[in-house]
Amino acid sequence: MNKKDNILIIGAGLCGSLLALRLAQRGYKVELFESRPDLRTNDISAGRSINLALSDRGFKALRLAGVEDKAREICIPMHGRLIHDAKENTFASNYSGRQGEYINSISRGDLNGILLTEAEKHENVTIHFNKKCISVDIEETVVRFKDYKTKEEFSVNGDVIFGTDGAGSVLRKSYYLERKFLFSYSQNYLTHGYKELEIPADALGNHQISKDHLHIWPRGEYMLIALPNLDGSFTVTLFLSYDEGEYNFNNLTTEKRITEFFEKEFPDALKLIPSIKDEFFNNPTGALGTVKCSPWFYKGNTVLMGDAAHAIVPFYGQGMNASFEDVTVFDTILDKHEGNWEAVFKEYQLVRKEDTDAIADLAIDNYYEMRDHVANPLFKQKRMLEMSLEENFPKEYFSKYSMVTFNENISYSEAMKKGRAQDKALLNMVAHNDLNSVSNLKEVLRKVQEETNEILEEDKIAGL
Amino acid sequence: MNKKDNILIIGAGLCGSLLALRLAQRGYKVELFESRPDLRTNDISAGRSINLALSDRGFKALRLAGVEDKAREICIPMHGRLIHDAKENTFASNYSGRQGEYINSISRGDLNGILLTEAEKHENVTIHFNKKCISVDIEETVVRFKDYKTKEEFSVNGDVIFGTDGAGSVLRKSYYLERKFLFSYSQNYLTHGYKELEIPADALGNHQISKDHLHIWPRGEYMLIALPNLDGSFTVTLFLSYDEGEYNFNNLTTEKRITEFFEKEFPDALKLIPSIKDEFFNNPTGALGTVKCSPWFYKGNTVLMGDAAHAIVPFYGQGMNASFEDVTVFDTILDKHEGNWEAVFKEYQLVRKEDTDAIADLAIDNYYEMRDHVANPLFKQKRMLEMSLEENFPKEYFSKYSMVTFNENISYSEAMKKGRAQDKALLNMVAHNDLNSVSNLKEVLRKVQEETNEILEEDKIAGL
Repeated sequence: MNKKDNILIIGAGLCGSLLALRLAQRGYKVELFESRPDLRTNDISAGRSINLALSDRGFKALRLAGVEDKAREICIPMHGRLIHDAKENTFASNYSGRQGEYINSISRGDLNGILLTEAEKHENVTIHFNKKCISVDIEETVVRFKDYKTKEEFSVNGDVIFGTDGAGSVLRKSYYLERKFLFSYSQNYLTHGYKELEIPADALGNHQISKDHLHIWPRGEYMLIALPNLDGSFTVTLFLSYDEGEYNFNNLTTEKRITEFFEKEFPDALKLIPSIKDEFFNNPTGALGTVKCSPWFYKGNTVLMGDAAHAIVPFYGQGMNASFEDVTVFDTILDKHEGNWEAVFKEYQLVRKEDTDAIADLAIDNYYEMRDHVANPLFKQKRMLEMSLEENFPKEYFSKYSMVTFNENISYSEAMKKGRAQDKALLNMVAHNDLNSVSNLKEVLRKVQEETNEILEEDKIAGL
Repeated sequence: MNKKDNILIIGAGLCGSLLALRLAQRGYKVELFESRPDLRTNDISAGRSINLALSDRGFKALRLAGVEDKAREICIPMHGRLIHDAKENTFASNYSGRQGEYINSISRGDLNGILLTEAEKHENVTIHFNKKCISVDIEETVVRFKDYKTKEEFSVNGDVIFGTDGAGSVLRKSYYLERKFLFSYSQNYLTHGYKELEIPADALGNHQISKDHLHIWPRGEYMLIALPNLDGSFTVTLFLSYDEGEYNFNNLTTEKRITEFFEKEFPDALKLIPSIKDEFFNNPTGALGTVKCSPWFYKGNTVLMGDAAHAIVPFYGQGMNASFEDVTVFDTILDKHEGNWEAVFKEYQLVRKEDTDAIADLAIDNYYEMRDHVANPLFKQKRMLEMSLEENFPKEYFSKYSMVTFNENISYSEAMKKGRAQDKALLNMVAHNDLNSVSNLKEVLRKVQEETNEILEEDKIAGL
């Protein structure tokens, strides 16, 4: 490959800006285009999650690009879930029984800003803001843009085009519409949407509830979560059906109804959200969708990455981490096939797709687990048992959550396969009281491992 | 509901014409539009499977519309698979151990013709051929058509619109493009495509190979199947990758290569396909895709049915049967909510979608089973055991295949759940030689049932 190849990256979000930085470090000439203004000098958070959970897969990619430390500086560690019941009781549930395993609340905008600033330090990177991609000619590798300020349209010719333009990717749409190849594509929405609200800092600028936890108010049909921000506030997200159940987005249309709903279901949260009415009516209701597609690339010309290739629901806290991990994986494959973009793209998809499919499915699983199971006695018992196993056998036992979140060297697909079998083994052992007669934890570990392997073996024989 | 509602049906294929017939029988005024010419007077088979497998779910719907006997007259019963290995050996594998359970090869065109003729007998049905649907205004229930002969465009206003316009449905496309609601949608292609070839009748007009079987040449990466026609010929379908493996559609470009491929993999079939070169080059290569979507309906205005709502791959022989069953289910729900189209559509999807999702997944499973497993010793042993169980306990044991194919009163989703558990139980028992020590078949049945229930119970506890 010619390092003078002109690389166009569409979308300077988290994935696009990390990718630009990394490709610049490898010596490529990169032009990065973003439809919105520079978020470092403009407030453009409306409608997007303003904080996110960063964990080990994300850190690994940031480390590769030399920006891990800068990111860590703006992280707020969250060691577990703090579950709030409808009677205002809380109980904590750690993410891991091991020391030093936690997830981090981080501002999307601040992290994106760090990545843009680092990328810009490279002479071979040019960033163009306010340039909205309108269409892509994948055969001729020409991208059509519209300038938001001048309203003028113009075309840019590249040698290779990366579409990191998010869940609504224009590059992906061109794959679908141009029909140059059989394009497998799915967009699947949950029946629930989401809305962001805010718990402000107290008068002294401090957090009003524990900042060391991700807060959850699970109510089966509804769910509220809250993640801390550095300024003492929390971003609260309400997950609610559009049109089902007693309370839903379609029928919560008056302040009275909203207050009634929160008083009944989330009384402790209500007291902490002073502007609930304004926020409820002014903030947009977002959809929760999963996007999968294949192929991700066209010849050696174009490739999709990040949400553009695999948008997922937020319930595993892995969206950003998965997109960052794309860059790690891509970088490894570049080492192998540098000089032949088509070979790079082909192997990248071959290696990566089963993992992004897996995290998409795991995120859906967690939607149900968080809504329904967190408050379920069987799941609670299982979770407590897992904590003891991790505490006592830190090198031998890893829960599904730990494998996904804290073990960046286990692939998502491996974590899903093993984690699901292990969950099934544990839940059945707990349900059947199989462990009551077992006196020591070492024996419990052995039984869980044995049962897990048996489940994996049986699935394999059945061709699953 | 006003029986004077003007019902527009887009697409007079198998599903659309059966639906038109049934709605006419119920007293509705129906206008049926078809893009192609009248297949009863024109040969328009190019590019579509010209014969299909009709089984009990299909018959149930035809019975409801009073046309079962007419269909039976043109059926060729196939009692099992006849498997051909690469050394020209064959072995038979029955579809059921029970008497009277078989599937039927039937001409798509002839069956469609019967349904059109029956529908036309009703004064309240009008059929318009050569009218291609171009777009649908789902809010105003107006359909735009183009006349193939005059090239003129015109609009038709209906009260309710049914889209039975197949896998490439224009109504479904309007759901996707108009973005009036969150539309979950997937189109997933297999890596393989298909091509139809022909084994002609012999000089006396007789079938050259057994007409009582569905013939299969399973070769892992490739597969050939053949279904008999009434005129003594067989329609042969080759399933082959587009671009993977030693032989694929992209590299089979010369007569020499094609002959070499067939000589190596399907020598007995090659001798029976005299025009292989012409057919291979002239017949189109079809794609194998699964389409799922939701919602199927928009208000009480429009609804998708048949392949337009749920196109599936052909490997379970259930595509037509599932579309016919749509009409059976819809008819039952009409009984309940007649007068309120929105209520009808809503409940129809609620009841029906999990079953069409299930048959889509089962058809994908069978793609792998037919390619890989039919020749696998474990699967053969399991299949033989199932045949004895069905023969000896005809009222107690039903294989997954029997539940799907011959038991129209078990839903697809139930058949999938129970059938998969049963397969898993059987395969594991066979693999572990658990049944070697069991002396009588009654005891085998009991063990299989016990193990199946355990698997179902364990999945339930794990929340699967």
